[in-house]
Amino acid sequence: MFGLIGKMRAHPGKREELLALLLDSTTGMPGCLSYVVAKDPADRDAIWITEVWNSRENHKASLQLPAVRSAIAAAMPLIAGFDSSIETEPVGGVGIPSA
Amino acid sequence: MFGLIGKMRAHPGKREELLALLLDSTTGMPGCLSYVVAKDPADRDAIWITEVWNSRENHKASLQLPAVRSAIAAAMPLIAGFDSSIETEPVGGVGIPSA
Repeated sequence: MFGLIGKMRAHPGKREELLALLLDSTTGMPGCLSYVVAKDPADRDAIWITEVWNSRENHKASLQLPAVRSAIAAAMPLIAGFDSSIETEPVGGVGIPSA
Repeated sequence: MFGLIGKMRAHPGKREELLALLLDSTTGMPGCLSYVVAKDPADRDAIWITEVWNSRENHKASLQLPAVRSAIAAAMPLIAGFDSSIETEPVGGVGIPSA
């Protein structure tokens, strides 16, 4: 499996709009086992996204899906920046199959 | 919902043993919606754990479950330290209900 833990920052006042876009665009992505969108309670502009994919290739392919490309285009004007992005190798747990 | 993103570090050579313990102890936790255990591919001793709970109270209560207490006791000698722990407020996505 392939995982990502990322933090992005919305422009001031745009977090709710960005969250809605992110939630709308996460259905129907082949190989996506988990994609959790969360607010950072300590930073009113920050969003955490934690992802689990069957493979790195599944994640890469998702970026070419029309719905995802459209969501990225709509989201970019709302995003002030990306604070961190960490790759992981999920091995199992609740909500995903064990390796 | 209540979320946690944490990084822990195993003593050298103990990551696999610690991963197995973590995976064994994550079943049957009331209110646990997602609990993903992952290796850090850039650090051979590091483990990432990303959690989603129905509530902060569900997470707190889980720490008192006999199976979890037993796993913590077994895991502590394998853990060199905790690098970071971030609280989040999950709002939805793939694999968990939308708020």
